Amino acid sequence: MLVFGKNVAKDLLQKNKNIRKIYFQDNFSDKEIISLSEKLNIPFQYYSKKEMDHLCSGVHQGIILDIPDYSYYNLKDYLRNTTDDYIVILDHIEDPHNFGAIIRTCEAAGIGAIIIPKDRQVPINATVMKTSVGTLDAIKIISVSNIAQSIEKLKEAGFWIVGTSLEDSIDYRSVDYSGKIALVIGNEGEGISSLVAKKCDFLVKIPMYGTTNSLNASVAAGIMIYEMIRNRK
Amino acid sequence: MLVFGKNVAKDLLQKNKNIRKIYFQDNFSDKEIISLSEKLNIPFQYYSKKEMDHLCSGVHQGIILDIPDYSYYNLKDYLRNTTDDYIVILDHIEDPHNFGAIIRTCEAAGIGAIIIPKDRQVPINATVMKTSVGTLDAIKIISVSNIAQSIEKLKEAGFWIVGTSLEDSIDYRSVDYSGKIALVIGNEGEGISSLVAKKCDFLVKIPMYGTTNSLNASVAAGIMIYEMIRNRK
Repeated sequence: MLVFGKNVAKDLLQKNKNIRKIYFQDNFSDKEIISLSEKLNIPFQYYSKKEMDHLCSGVHQGIILDIPDYSYYNLKDYLRNTTDDYIVILDHIEDPHNFGAIIRTCEAAGIGAIIIPKDRQVPINATVMKTSVGTLDAIKIISVSNIAQSIEKLKEAGFWIVGTSLEDSIDYRSVDYSGKIALVIGNEGEGISSLVAKKCDFLVKIPMYGTTNSLNASVAAGIMIYEMIRNRK
Repeated sequence: MLVFGKNVAKDLLQKNKNIRKIYFQDNFSDKEIISLSEKLNIPFQYYSKKEMDHLCSGVHQGIILDIPDYSYYNLKDYLRNTTDDYIVILDHIEDPHNFGAIIRTCEAAGIGAIIIPKDRQVPINATVMKTSVGTLDAIKIISVSNIAQSIEKLKEAGFWIVGTSLEDSIDYRSVDYSGKIALVIGNEGEGISSLVAKKCDFLVKIPMYGTTNSLNASVAAGIMIYEMIRNRK
């Protein structure tokens, strides 16, 4: 896949990641990036701004990198090997900025894995890479066909399932998060699906005092994740 | 200023806000928006997609509205009349998505006002309007020339100043937020300026367990704001 931006480029080059090719804009002048890419002997090509703009739809800052697609993890393998107490499940997040910000929050909070569904969910793409820059390596992104079935497997592995919902829910501060917890974050517009809500052990809400009753999905995820790890030893 | 997007349009029309003119893309077909704009008798014009794309740089969804620029509030007037216990200060937030998400979080948390500096801070623009959609009316955005001087005025008005900082700071959960609190959120890259940090009564940090030690600014603001209002009566 094609990813872009100076911070993403620096991160991938510094970690000596597999980069197939680099496209530089013809006036690109960041010495650190050029020096790193020369040292690693990565194939490169110079393009005009117009050609660069055609290659990608974001703010590329004069550098685009061709890297292998993200290799998602498998839930069964993860559960066999993990000792994680916390996991986050995304029930169809659509906005790549939200997905990227949630990856970054999980990394900062020490959450080891995020489960995402295969369909109607933004995958790991260039914008997610840019928003989460530098943090994706520390997290296992697990791709599953069915969130509800995956919740059953998590329950068998000893996880309590906590979902966020405006309806039939209790205050997010009133749950005991001391066990193994899988936190479900719902879609930006629709929230958690009713099937997934039924599978949750607890439905919680963040109290709101305004008129619109909606937080940005990555902000709500941040508040919930830091509540979940609040009393961690 | 020109603002855009269906949600922004619906919100402004439903609230019967001052709209000078509407630009519709020639194939625009949202019946609710068309009906509302006809009912309010707002001047309009049909443009091609190409002309619409030239008018604005965001995803306009076929509708652009010309509205008066935002009228910022004045700190002196605000302090003379307010009974607010909490206020948020942005120390030069640059990303309009972050500013919009912070406005939305403040509205949800019942925070009445946000102070922003005149320079090196994203103003209320189309992207901020889009990200904060529907919530800006409930918040007073106060524009000031100097954050450090404004902090002095807030102190005289009985506010404790809490700033977020990675250095020389205590855990964000260890502060007593029961008084009148002004919470300072720093710039995305630089954090709080050293001059502003010196003026803070408390410097706090959100503990991080990863390698990059950085949260998205609007996520960090969300965690801090909900901690501040946690024990509100």
